[in-house]
Amino acid sequence: MALLINGLSGFSIPALDRGLQYGDGLFETIAVAAGEPCLWHRHRQRLERGCRRLKIEIPDGDILLEEVYREIDRRPRGVIKIVLTRGSGGRGYLPPQIQTPTRLVYFSEWPEYPAGLTRSGVRVRLCETRLGQNAALAGLKSLNRLEQILARAEWVDRDISEGLMRDTEGYLVEGTMSNLFVVDEAQLRTPDLGVCGVAGVMREVVMDQAARLGIPLSIEKLTMRDLASANGLFLSNSLIGIWPVREFDGEKYDPGRVPSALVDAVMDHGFRFG
Amino acid sequence: MALLINGLSGFSIPALDRGLQYGDGLFETIAVAAGEPCLWHRHRQRLERGCRRLKIEIPDGDILLEEVYREIDRRPRGVIKIVLTRGSGGRGYLPPQIQTPTRLVYFSEWPEYPAGLTRSGVRVRLCETRLGQNAALAGLKSLNRLEQILARAEWVDRDISEGLMRDTEGYLVEGTMSNLFVVDEAQLRTPDLGVCGVAGVMREVVMDQAARLGIPLSIEKLTMRDLASANGLFLSNSLIGIWPVREFDGEKYDPGRVPSALVDAVMDHGFRFG
Repeated sequence: MALLINGLSGFSIPALDRGLQYGDGLFETIAVAAGEPCLWHRHRQRLERGCRRLKIEIPDGDILLEEVYREIDRRPRGVIKIVLTRGSGGRGYLPPQIQTPTRLVYFSEWPEYPAGLTRSGVRVRLCETRLGQNAALAGLKSLNRLEQILARAEWVDRDISEGLMRDTEGYLVEGTMSNLFVVDEAQLRTPDLGVCGVAGVMREVVMDQAARLGIPLSIEKLTMRDLASANGLFLSNSLIGIWPVREFDGEKYDPGRVPSALVDAVMDHGFRFG
Repeated sequence: MALLINGLSGFSIPALDRGLQYGDGLFETIAVAAGEPCLWHRHRQRLERGCRRLKIEIPDGDILLEEVYREIDRRPRGVIKIVLTRGSGGRGYLPPQIQTPTRLVYFSEWPEYPAGLTRSGVRVRLCETRLGQNAALAGLKSLNRLEQILARAEWVDRDISEGLMRDTEGYLVEGTMSNLFVVDEAQLRTPDLGVCGVAGVMREVVMDQAARLGIPLSIEKLTMRDLASANGLFLSNSLIGIWPVREFDGEKYDPGRVPSALVDAVMDHGFRFG
């Protein structure tokens, strides 16, 4: 199955593309439900925010959406990935003055996660690989993902669905592919992403829905002790929506402690075009 | 001019290659002098050390060298770049169990740096962009280079040859494309690369030649104050050999304070096959 590369059907990109040479770019992973790209405007806005921070030319949103639909090709369910790089050129690390970004849009099958994890919860481990702190890259879904790769390579047991990562100071930041939330008696807490981590689109949905439901939520630095004393934990990303944690690093958590109204609201609002 | 991609002439790589998708790979930039790849064994060894750390299959050294010569094609002077990625496959960040790495080898023209910089010295600025600390990636010449790109994008003045980068704690680590050395009365000092930075091949040559010449050299954490009180500063990389600094952040330094015996030895040993 061919991909769309700058709007044209293809399979390959120039070897000198800065996306390959330096990881000089961004990406989005988008759920497709009922033939629609879910949370489209949020994904597009995050991509644009990333472009502004990396000074990559922002792609035309209408063209991008047209390409997304062309790749979906009326299939009801699946995943759209967008990769945007600064393109070729420049002298070494110096970006070229006139950029010709590379825009990759492609469809892939819906991942075969075991059914029912949103209710039953998942097993999660603690990764040894840390996240370096750098405010300049924090929050971005950039093409520099070696930390996540090294962390994800720490386990192969398919019964462990995710690994949590700490930053170099020891604060819990996120999963390798998901954001983290802690459920306490009265409120939700999620790690501050000011110095590292990826600011997930589904994380935004969780925060918005918590606000709508009147569930207090604070953004904080979270420690291992905060997780040990939590009533519940859950993860979010654009494909899973919410996964409660039923076990982290050998400790049991009750998936039922994640407010079911919140789970329902996120699973409902998180898989629509909008 | 075509590149060699896994030994075959070509211009492009699969769009799903993990090198593009995640920056999942390594590279080497090698000077070509008198038709030979300079410091070949050091470059090959660094690439292999990087492969071991990232658990990427090590390419056959003989095949790689044969490809390097094929790309040099008897041209006396130029640059060889090798890019090695984990190839395609895997589920998300999880590396595939059976890897088929992508090996890119290509020649480019010798960069037109102004003549005589090794004697006259260069102007250098201080970058605002910081280096995140992460021992898991420190020292590696990986394809995750967004920090260097953001730092290098801070200036366009062609009279400024390099920018120095601090880590998030404020220690001076390196230039965007070079390693840093401080010249004091009795000794040389160069930053510790235990938590960030790229361990340059020419940095090794500087350290070896300093040892051979009986010039003491220590590896330390270096502060802005250390630079302010230094007699001299210099930079190293595989293409420049040594560049003394004549101005850093508005302060003047005497390029003549860099021991000329060391400069001669590095420029002599650094541009030979070996």
